Amino acid sequence: MKVLITGGAGFLGQRLARELLERGEIAGADGKRERIGELVLLDVVEGADLGDARVKTLVGDIGERSVLENAIDTDTAAIFHLAAIVSGQAEADFDLGMRINLDASRLLLEVCRARGHRPRVVFTSSVAVYGGELPAVVQDDTALNPQSSYGAQKAIAELLLSDYTRRGFVDGRVLRLPTISVRPGKPNAAASSFASGIVREPLSGEEAVCPVPGETRLWLLSPRGAIEALIAGCELDGAALGNRRIVNLPGISVSVNEMVEALREVAGDEAVARIRWETDGRIVKIVGSWPGSWNTERAEKLGLKGDASFADVIRSYIEDEKR
Amino acid sequence: MKVLITGGAGFLGQRLARELLERGEIAGADGKRERIGELVLLDVVEGADLGDARVKTLVGDIGERSVLENAIDTDTAAIFHLAAIVSGQAEADFDLGMRINLDASRLLLEVCRARGHRPRVVFTSSVAVYGGELPAVVQDDTALNPQSSYGAQKAIAELLLSDYTRRGFVDGRVLRLPTISVRPGKPNAAASSFASGIVREPLSGEEAVCPVPGETRLWLLSPRGAIEALIAGCELDGAALGNRRIVNLPGISVSVNEMVEALREVAGDEAVARIRWETDGRIVKIVGSWPGSWNTERAEKLGLKGDASFADVIRSYIEDEKR
Repeated sequence: MKVLITGGAGFLGQRLARELLERGEIAGADGKRERIGELVLLDVVEGADLGDARVKTLVGDIGERSVLENAIDTDTAAIFHLAAIVSGQAEADFDLGMRINLDASRLLLEVCRARGHRPRVVFTSSVAVYGGELPAVVQDDTALNPQSSYGAQKAIAELLLSDYTRRGFVDGRVLRLPTISVRPGKPNAAASSFASGIVREPLSGEEAVCPVPGETRLWLLSPRGAIEALIAGCELDGAALGNRRIVNLPGISVSVNEMVEALREVAGDEAVARIRWETDGRIVKIVGSWPGSWNTERAEKLGLKGDASFADVIRSYIEDEKR
Repeated sequence: MKVLITGGAGFLGQRLARELLERGEIAGADGKRERIGELVLLDVVEGADLGDARVKTLVGDIGERSVLENAIDTDTAAIFHLAAIVSGQAEADFDLGMRINLDASRLLLEVCRARGHRPRVVFTSSVAVYGGELPAVVQDDTALNPQSSYGAQKAIAELLLSDYTRRGFVDGRVLRLPTISVRPGKPNAAASSFASGIVREPLSGEEAVCPVPGETRLWLLSPRGAIEALIAGCELDGAALGNRRIVNLPGISVSVNEMVEALREVAGDEAVARIRWETDGRIVKIVGSWPGSWNTERAEKLGLKGDASFADVIRSYIEDEKR
């Protein structure tokens, strides 16, 4: 069988690829675990060479149907659709966000439909689909009211995947991810970029800017947790999901102040002193519209897990970086 | 100012047009009531001649951008977007539903955005955006889980209108309509077509088929009520809506059995005897996924009203037909 990862050169895509290569198998279209013969990594840029003969790298624009047609055939039993324009960029460039977050997601579903083999398709969604007046803890049946174009586009992709699944064109699942922290590498255009930066930069001796007040509450998941959840989400029995193909993944609810205290616990006052506080209204507005917590009962019943504590998340980040 | 109605040759479009011509004015882009100089009726077919010099009829496919560009200019201060592929047809022809219910709605928003004059845009949505496990009374913050392609497409159009409004491209409002009953004319491809047919046909001495069990609960609004709500929805102050551009319109919650009893009250046993009961699983599945009631508090606070009773709705249908 073949597996496709869109956004395969990105941080999560590369990490997911490594994990899948290590496991060597995954449950595909018929629910039985099968050996992964080919792992296709599709991205708009070339990713790192993973040094594995099973990997096939494709560079192309997923806004073009031909690129997706080239990446998906009837052996492609599982698809992880991670490619996206992040929140800050989708807000700055409306048309680009629509083209990738909405149109390309729909094209991917259309190509699967045309192939007719009903693959498992995993979409990642986001805290950003929520917004407006929210309960303290968001429930599975809380209505979406996104306050960013990214959130609106993700909510639309969710609806598309659910309907394509209901109609039998694909076997889809949507995993709503908490904000991922701690991401390695450089800051990006996501409004939530700081949620990694305020830990990552101080740990490597650099200054970080925190653009939101310390009491801002975030809903976080570690990269390790995200990769586990993506694979588990793909392997979930469709019958267990029924007509609710969207799962809110477990996270930990922490205020930015609590994140800073966890950093102090792990790396001391010196690290914390490298955080500069400088409010950015644009980021406060987007991030402030997201829920700081949601009910995780259903996800846990489905066997999906989150992290134990943010201090643990920082420790595992340090471990992963050492490797 | 100009007003545009898409689906202007349809039953609601024609009725809305007549009401607007009678009123002669409506609140447009800046919120002040202005004289309607031109009323553009756009549809894929020619409508009845309304015999009014203010009316301009356009025949064209709203899936084509040029058709919408021809219909919307910077004087078009208010747009009622009623054109749609109905539920049964969107389920039978997936691509057609996507093209009109999703793509054409987006095109309409794009043309407005390109014009740059921020018109008031009223989208009609539907009970069909809800589905799956629902509370007995749907709340404003109940999540959408549509179980038909029509419902998914309407939910997507809602998200688009909300985001285009948030970004300042249009001043949008979405009115979620209950099932409209009693519609005059012929049965159509809507799964809910029977909700008018079981009253309309017996009243004109014809047989009607009821494809759902008598205990099926429907959420209904009369055509009169719908037209009132459409105009009131357009005239609502945007500030009163805030970041919640979607309003669940008031309806009356009746079982099909109660509808039949109302028909008996108004037209006697003879009329009721013309209803033949013949279950259609396809219709039961779609209509059964819709809510039978929702909370109307917010709509009422905004000044939007429903009907008093279904017997009254039947009486006003008979009155309207006599004219």
